[in-house]
Amino acid sequence: MDTVNIGLIRVLTLSDQKEIDRHGLIIEGAFSGLKVRSRCIEDHPKGLYDKISEEEAKPKIISLAKELRKGVEAIIVSCAADPAVKELKEILNIPVIGAGESLAAVSRTLGGSVGVITITNNVPDPVRRGLGERYLTWKKVEGVESTLDLKEGDILAHTLNTAMALRKQGSNVIALACTGFSTAGVAPKISKELGMPVVDPVLAAGSIAYNLMLNKECWREDVED
Amino acid sequence: MDTVNIGLIRVLTLSDQKEIDRHGLIIEGAFSGLKVRSRCIEDHPKGLYDKISEEEAKPKIISLAKELRKGVEAIIVSCAADPAVKELKEILNIPVIGAGESLAAVSRTLGGSVGVITITNNVPDPVRRGLGERYLTWKKVEGVESTLDLKEGDILAHTLNTAMALRKQGSNVIALACTGFSTAGVAPKISKELGMPVVDPVLAAGSIAYNLMLNKECWREDVED
Repeated sequence: MDTVNIGLIRVLTLSDQKEIDRHGLIIEGAFSGLKVRSRCIEDHPKGLYDKISEEEAKPKIISLAKELRKGVEAIIVSCAADPAVKELKEILNIPVIGAGESLAAVSRTLGGSVGVITITNNVPDPVRRGLGERYLTWKKVEGVESTLDLKEGDILAHTLNTAMALRKQGSNVIALACTGFSTAGVAPKISKELGMPVVDPVLAAGSIAYNLMLNKECWREDVED
Repeated sequence: MDTVNIGLIRVLTLSDQKEIDRHGLIIEGAFSGLKVRSRCIEDHPKGLYDKISEEEAKPKIISLAKELRKGVEAIIVSCAADPAVKELKEILNIPVIGAGESLAAVSRTLGGSVGVITITNNVPDPVRRGLGERYLTWKKVEGVESTLDLKEGDILAHTLNTAMALRKQGSNVIALACTGFSTAGVAPKISKELGMPVVDPVLAAGSIAYNLMLNKECWREDVED
């Protein structure tokens, strides 16, 4: 079977390649045919959590994307704030997929009224913009200040409570606006409890990248005809 | 393996169940675990091609969706104009996915500047609205007035010419704004010729529905832990 090679950029500095590969493995597990090569930026041990850390990270993301670009057919920036995604879409001649815009794209289509869960005191711009008229409201998950805090044991309960509050306000789909939620794997558990879709940003980005694979699959069939 | 059952509504009246099932089969072939049950509306032998035919079809789509609703976890309306999708999102308590909004969602994320190919003299509202600031331009494919004309032999060449014109105008992704393009299977062929993503509306809707499957898969893994 053919594969599509995807480059993935982690915005959290990690030393263990297994940890760096985690989002890539989530995507490979869900989308047969995608092969993900992951790298992380330097000197961001707490990830990105405000405008200043995002701006500092941008040139590093652009530089890493240029390195990764050789041998891949698309690049995913695995952060819901989509740092440098706009710039990279202009610089590179392959698709550059932000986890934030992907999250918005899938969420707005699965639901009529989207509630957003964040780890910061604002909804990331690409998520808000991508949701457009489908955006309903947002809420920050309690006791979390950076993606690192999403690893704690009781984060599932906090996130579930937040999601329940958003459902009460009329949301019929929940968008998890930090890729740390993907690392923690909370989306399916919350979805089951709530009985409604909860969208994971890393899997949303995978869904978009998979469309490149679908085209390639069809080419293969043509050759065999 | 668990499956997710999806109901799919064709807005083109067909008598052969094989033909009715065609979009469902495209989705099942691309997304392992989705099981699609398809039905078509009555008395629309040319499909939907203008505001009048869309309005006439709406109550039929709503009625069919209510019938299909039992035993499915989401409903796809397989038409790029998303007829009755807004209404159904309010009436039903499961996700209702329009092919038009799905097309826009995937296209805006895969590209920076989206060119839309239509079969009518306008861009369907949900496609235009969903693309937002990523919308660049549109062009009608030559010699086509309804989805039936997309079956003709030279439609691939006409669509490719249209896509090439949109690329010349600066589009870096092409959105095919009629599910008849999916029936004709033109997206991968054009994508290969152009060397850029061409988004198929039925596969885009499948990508969104697949997110429900991803959640269910994770539940299953939890049980096995």
